[in-house]
Amino acid sequence: MLASEIPVLTVLCGADSPPDMAAVESDAVVRYTDARGLPDALRGADALFVYDFLSTAVPGAWPAADRLRWLHIAAAGVDPVLFPELQESDVVLTNSRGVFDDAIAEYVLGVVLAFAKDFARSLDLQRATTWRHRESERIAGRQVLVVGTGPIGRAIARLLRAAGMQVSGSGRRARTGDPDFGVVRDSGELPQYLGEFDYVVAVAPLTAQTKGMFGAEAFAAMKPSARFVNVGRGELVVTAELVAALRAGEIAGAALDVFETEPLPPDSPLWTMPGVLVSPHMSGDFSGWRRTLVEVFTANFRRWRAGEPLHNVVDKRLGYVPSQPQGAAG
Amino acid sequence: MLASEIPVLTVLCGADSPPDMAAVESDAVVRYTDARGLPDALRGADALFVYDFLSTAVPGAWPAADRLRWLHIAAAGVDPVLFPELQESDVVLTNSRGVFDDAIAEYVLGVVLAFAKDFARSLDLQRATTWRHRESERIAGRQVLVVGTGPIGRAIARLLRAAGMQVSGSGRRARTGDPDFGVVRDSGELPQYLGEFDYVVAVAPLTAQTKGMFGAEAFAAMKPSARFVNVGRGELVVTAELVAALRAGEIAGAALDVFETEPLPPDSPLWTMPGVLVSPHMSGDFSGWRRTLVEVFTANFRRWRAGEPLHNVVDKRLGYVPSQPQGAAG
Repeated sequence: MLASEIPVLTVLCGADSPPDMAAVESDAVVRYTDARGLPDALRGADALFVYDFLSTAVPGAWPAADRLRWLHIAAAGVDPVLFPELQESDVVLTNSRGVFDDAIAEYVLGVVLAFAKDFARSLDLQRATTWRHRESERIAGRQVLVVGTGPIGRAIARLLRAAGMQVSGSGRRARTGDPDFGVVRDSGELPQYLGEFDYVVAVAPLTAQTKGMFGAEAFAAMKPSARFVNVGRGELVVTAELVAALRAGEIAGAALDVFETEPLPPDSPLWTMPGVLVSPHMSGDFSGWRRTLVEVFTANFRRWRAGEPLHNVVDKRLGYVPSQPQGAAG
Repeated sequence: MLASEIPVLTVLCGADSPPDMAAVESDAVVRYTDARGLPDALRGADALFVYDFLSTAVPGAWPAADRLRWLHIAAAGVDPVLFPELQESDVVLTNSRGVFDDAIAEYVLGVVLAFAKDFARSLDLQRATTWRHRESERIAGRQVLVVGTGPIGRAIARLLRAAGMQVSGSGRRARTGDPDFGVVRDSGELPQYLGEFDYVVAVAPLTAQTKGMFGAEAFAAMKPSARFVNVGRGELVVTAELVAALRAGEIAGAALDVFETEPLPPDSPLWTMPGVLVSPHMSGDFSGWRRTLVEVFTANFRRWRAGEPLHNVVDKRLGYVPSQPQGAAG
């Protein structure tokens, strides 16, 4: 296709359509579709914008992608579109790295403070019109492990450090002198050092290596007073083993924004377990996030049309955007 | 009394007695009493340690204080012992300045994040087994006014700034270039600038000047989206006017740790109002606080016995410990 030709862009939408697409529409034939119409809409398309970022429809529609060169997803985690046919193809995959970092960091600091200050109990007591004084915990000086050293993990580390906590990282490569984490431990040896931490925050990308990394062995290694926070992906956790660890008192609590099955099924014991905070996959979704996601796509679309290198190109083997060529994001 | 004489120390206790008093007991005749026994225990006493810091028993027992030279209160706010006869006497009043600062700052950051991230609604939805995604707010860049520029207000300002918020102060004397606040506005002109802020935090000492400073006029001046946080004293607020402002939508919410009447009466509308977080006067009470309070007293007791100047001497006219001779704590 010559730059002068008008490309075909398919946009996979869910309940909501992306706002502010006028700039893109002036320079592409845009086909909006839902999951059902995706195969037809993919045929002859040059680019695919996965705006419905939790949709699992792309792998099934892939045989229709006869001309696709670029796939952009309105998310940081690319796991819904990371399947072998895409990985082996020449299609360039980009994500929305950076949009959610600081909002998620604020969310994590919020749940850490909610645990330390016993906010859930305060609210339950308030709902019961009951005045009951308790002592609470400090967060200053407490040890936090952030598992996942990409941009979201880094934003979490910076904010928690600013609030006085002691933060380390866990990633693919052990190292010292990291600007945000100081020390980064080897995520392959997680159970060996999990016992040192008061808070363990999961924010690793979901890959074959990270799937189920928080299971019985990991929880058994944590302090009985530890709180586990998941703002990454539900599949990082073996849910049944988390439930068992909470029941056995192997850890003290969990704040979970993501789940193996979303929405969390009504019969999940997590809804009602003491010490568990459930939120509906919203930690990064600050007011204005959808507009920002479209801005990120639009900026990349302009680069694509101008023949410039795209931003946020995912390493399809790793499953995320490497921070540096040597893979320091791991 | 000569230094070689053993002084009589009266300790006013509530339900709990102070821990770790052995060092003091080895150098004083210590009389532990509750409110009922206070007059008898005060007669002939050289010093009074008000460990039950919310007790209102001291003014009524004051005629029995025939020999008292020093009164120490296990609190930052001295309002329960600030009555005319004490103010006019030569009795030195000291407080527990510094013990609660950082814990209260963490609590305030926690409720700010609880508002921004809609935690109360998340917990209510969790209790109802309901998955409902919402957008949430960022805290970075939001404007905070801290009313009260003593050590607790300063700790709040430092922590909220570290978390990315824009913080100003309000105190007795307008000024710029404050190390913690940057700009400090004149608390006498509060309604003129309250409308600039997303969060208003009350942490002023309770004095004749500050009593009821948050009333109808102040709330009407705030943004409809503003949240009010009180970690100072309940009497800083005209409760009925706060309730009316919340009902009228003049402000969006309130996190209240202190109340005009404590415990908060069961029939108070505050328990059940949307947007209101009630906690039972616990914001500073980190695990170990009682031990720390006794340590602060013990250190001052040693100074007193050695004839050294006491720490945390309250200006009984102002009602708090001035930060600097010129009264910059105001």
